[in-house]
Amino acid sequence: MQVERLKINYKTLEEFKKFKEYGVQELSMLEDLQENIIEDNCDSPFYGIYYGDKLVARMSLYERSAKYDLYFDPPQNYLELWKLEVLPDYQFKGYGKKLVEFAKSFGVPIKTNSRMKSKEFWEKMGFQTVTYDMDRDLGQNPLVWYPEGVKEKKQTAN
Amino acid sequence: MQVERLKINYKTLEEFKKFKEYGVQELSMLEDLQENIIEDNCDSPFYGIYYGDKLVARMSLYERSAKYDLYFDPPQNYLELWKLEVLPDYQFKGYGKKLVEFAKSFGVPIKTNSRMKSKEFWEKMGFQTVTYDMDRDLGQNPLVWYPEGVKEKKQTAN
Repeated sequence: MQVERLKINYKTLEEFKKFKEYGVQELSMLEDLQENIIEDNCDSPFYGIYYGDKLVARMSLYERSAKYDLYFDPPQNYLELWKLEVLPDYQFKGYGKKLVEFAKSFGVPIKTNSRMKSKEFWEKMGFQTVTYDMDRDLGQNPLVWYPEGVKEKKQTAN
Repeated sequence: MQVERLKINYKTLEEFKKFKEYGVQELSMLEDLQENIIEDNCDSPFYGIYYGDKLVARMSLYERSAKYDLYFDPPQNYLELWKLEVLPDYQFKGYGKKLVEFAKSFGVPIKTNSRMKSKEFWEKMGFQTVTYDMDRDLGQNPLVWYPEGVKEKKQTAN
């Protein structure tokens, strides 16, 4: 079980169609490929795990700069993690955990937006629910992971 | 069929539990009530439609100020719409449409984050998919509605 950075090409985008959270991001990548805006094999924000030659788990991981940081104290570069998903037949085998551990290995804070049903999984992975702030969080259920020395940003009165 | 601004109180929060997208936002409101941080009957960002005395549809609607506007040209105050949801037995009866029309009646641009399955509904309501920008949109599938005279914000190179 090994985490790989996925290349953006037609094969990868075809594999992405099996995942429920196929969305505007993938459609936009497909267009960019077709219009030669990005190169085949260009690096992507996606990381995944193959079982044989089949992609069975993936996540998106993207570095946000400190100037956008509304979650951590002190403000700093952090990773936004989304579209963590394991195909149904491969769930409960540690693929999700492996991907999250990979994300944590960078040693910087991580923020994700959880589905309520997956909250238990995230807590097991050491993530914590932040204090909800409507102006910042809107429809999100933000969960964060703090490396040592980092804490939650204090809320300011709106 | 009439849209009402929902009061935040224990009764409303109890009704919210029937909706799938019950999340951190509702839990935080419940805590605020319990700790007397907010008053019973305080106005909320939630609007809904009752059938008899049962809440059967709801949405959250929140005004964002122009300084946060990354979607519209010219930059301006706009509404963020989320948690639009109709209870299963009441779907396909126009409740969702009624709520969205209510949001549009303010005459300002609206931004929402769609689930891919609901894209057809939003397009029928006059919403358009924006050009995906990873740095801004991350895991979202943003759809927007432009009142007359407003257009999509041009992308700047990252």
